[in-house]
Amino acid sequence: MKYLYIVGALGSIGTQTLDIVRNNKDEFKVVGMAVGSNLALAKELIEEFKPEVVCYRNNKCDLSYSPIEYFGDEGLLKLASYHKYDNEVFVNALVGISGLLPTVYAIKSKKDIALANKETLVVAGDLIKALVKEYNVSLTPIDSEHSAILQCIHGENKSEIKRLIITASGGSFRNKKREELENVTKADALKHPNWSMGSKITIDSATMMNKGFEVIEAHYLFDIPYEKIDTILHPESIVHSMVEYNDGSIKAQIGASDMHIPIQYALRYPSHNNLDGKSLNLIGLNLNFMELSTLRYPCLKYAYMVAKKGGIYYAVLNAANEAAVYLFLNDKIKFLDIERIIYSEISNDEYKSISYNLENIIDISKKIIDKLVVRYGGK
Amino acid sequence: MKYLYIVGALGSIGTQTLDIVRNNKDEFKVVGMAVGSNLALAKELIEEFKPEVVCYRNNKCDLSYSPIEYFGDEGLLKLASYHKYDNEVFVNALVGISGLLPTVYAIKSKKDIALANKETLVVAGDLIKALVKEYNVSLTPIDSEHSAILQCIHGENKSEIKRLIITASGGSFRNKKREELENVTKADALKHPNWSMGSKITIDSATMMNKGFEVIEAHYLFDIPYEKIDTILHPESIVHSMVEYNDGSIKAQIGASDMHIPIQYALRYPSHNNLDGKSLNLIGLNLNFMELSTLRYPCLKYAYMVAKKGGIYYAVLNAANEAAVYLFLNDKIKFLDIERIIYSEISNDEYKSISYNLENIIDISKKIIDKLVVRYGGK
Repeated sequence: MKYLYIVGALGSIGTQTLDIVRNNKDEFKVVGMAVGSNLALAKELIEEFKPEVVCYRNNKCDLSYSPIEYFGDEGLLKLASYHKYDNEVFVNALVGISGLLPTVYAIKSKKDIALANKETLVVAGDLIKALVKEYNVSLTPIDSEHSAILQCIHGENKSEIKRLIITASGGSFRNKKREELENVTKADALKHPNWSMGSKITIDSATMMNKGFEVIEAHYLFDIPYEKIDTILHPESIVHSMVEYNDGSIKAQIGASDMHIPIQYALRYPSHNNLDGKSLNLIGLNLNFMELSTLRYPCLKYAYMVAKKGGIYYAVLNAANEAAVYLFLNDKIKFLDIERIIYSEISNDEYKSISYNLENIIDISKKIIDKLVVRYGGK
Repeated sequence: MKYLYIVGALGSIGTQTLDIVRNNKDEFKVVGMAVGSNLALAKELIEEFKPEVVCYRNNKCDLSYSPIEYFGDEGLLKLASYHKYDNEVFVNALVGISGLLPTVYAIKSKKDIALANKETLVVAGDLIKALVKEYNVSLTPIDSEHSAILQCIHGENKSEIKRLIITASGGSFRNKKREELENVTKADALKHPNWSMGSKITIDSATMMNKGFEVIEAHYLFDIPYEKIDTILHPESIVHSMVEYNDGSIKAQIGASDMHIPIQYALRYPSHNNLDGKSLNLIGLNLNFMELSTLRYPCLKYAYMVAKKGGIYYAVLNAANEAAVYLFLNDKIKFLDIERIIYSEISNDEYKSISYNLENIIDISKKIIDKLVVRYGGK
């Protein structure tokens, strides 16, 4: 039995994780749930899974039983620190840098980490890797791309990897030229062609910042240098990523565009048993692979630029993006302003003197977000 | 250092294996070579690699040194039995059932087997598997499809496999309808769209008997029941085969249409180091997957039919095919006669009483081939 803590339980990844628990009650038990502001859905799912610990954002639900109850950001850390069973897994499906500290606390309380919150590794990859080592827990990705890479390198010798090839759907605007992007709307940006996801990651896909984050995430998850991490445009999102070896052989993971598959792999790694998602019909597939241009998608280039700068600039990149996406979703800036804001922040030399540690990462992230939101009138 | 015996050294697989040895002299040494009738090429390659043992088909070359020399079918068995080093690999690139006994003798002299001769496993899979176990040697495929499957299951748990998916290019006539096949010529049949191979396997690809053999070969190589082995039409020959797991995840091996890659994988298994072939440019690829119809390609169905009958019928299938391809290549029968002859033989109940052992496999194969060649005036 694995004992799960699911934070971000009401979102896309959270509810799909709960689907898997629902279908495999002899394998998984939910011990903790952190829920957002949809209290009707929260009540329904808490009553169904009856976790021992619940963390609410603000207001609590009226329940038929009495779990331990926590609230807000501090409550998230208490939930992450709760510890009762041998075999605990912390499923982090939070959005943005708010996922960072809960991951740190979960590691320190000896939970294995199943990570959908990619910002955790983007802003603090070195620190998280060191903690994972120190506390001897596992760190498994829930992203479809990183799940694919994990599957393709399982059983292989890392020194024989020539490169990782992360596939990208191209996002909502993949059929638009750059000059057509100036006046695109929020509604258009939120229509992802292949995946149904939360709004932040859907915008990150449209700007390709998401792919940049995935490059950074892959670097930390698999200990692969950036010069060995490539991206490729694959509009069908059927090949979820690939690994090329030194002998010219490429291993690819293929599957339906269904997040249940990477979630179940993260929970059962390295087992491939039990289908809780959709299986793929290969007949009739037509799969295309094209160059992913950094001229068309500069945010991807910004990720590599930040990787060269290193240190606190990972947090600067993420904070600038979080603020810009928030502003775009609140109709304060245009779509292309997102990348302009990011470029301006990561080019700012004044962050150079800030040393790379957890406190500074959180502090500078908050400062940048507050500054940008005030500047563009978001609040 | 691995010590290689290469039988069929002048053919497509043989010369590509020698390419790999040429590029990696600190890794591989050729101890034995069996050559065919092109004595000019034989002399050149023997002088280059200086094997200790040579087997000629009929006439010998005039050499600058004095290796041990054997001749003909009996010589092949002597070469297979030669034993001097700890780490010997027998690369079987012979064509047809003539590859069977050399494999048996090589196993009995404790050589690991790298197998391009698929007929060995088709006619005597159970016997070969038992010998491999008894003599504790390894058996590694050189076929691109089986190499792909081996790569996709490496490190995985076999019990979690849902099915193997063997890809097929469709062969020389993949763009022709069945009714257009009646009067196709030998020259047309020998033009394979993706691979440059020997004439027998190119015809086997056109009839899809080759894919049928690969289904049988996969069954024995990976201990997977026939109902879990599927085939799919993939005209580009870029995805060399796939494995679907119980969780809906599919692993695929992708690479250039270059046999150096599966050969080097067989020689270095499970290492992926060193490229001795072509690397693949993924950009611009357009990959298609279609149903492989057994109405269009009945030989594929015949393989599954024979698998149900089992025993000596594996040899009957192969012998009928060997004879028919020989007759077609000698302009004695038409293209569609190949499958008619095969169907007639495998439907013949008189073979039922013949028990499945090495002597009977060789005996009935010879009898069927002789009978068919006489009947259709091949000799």
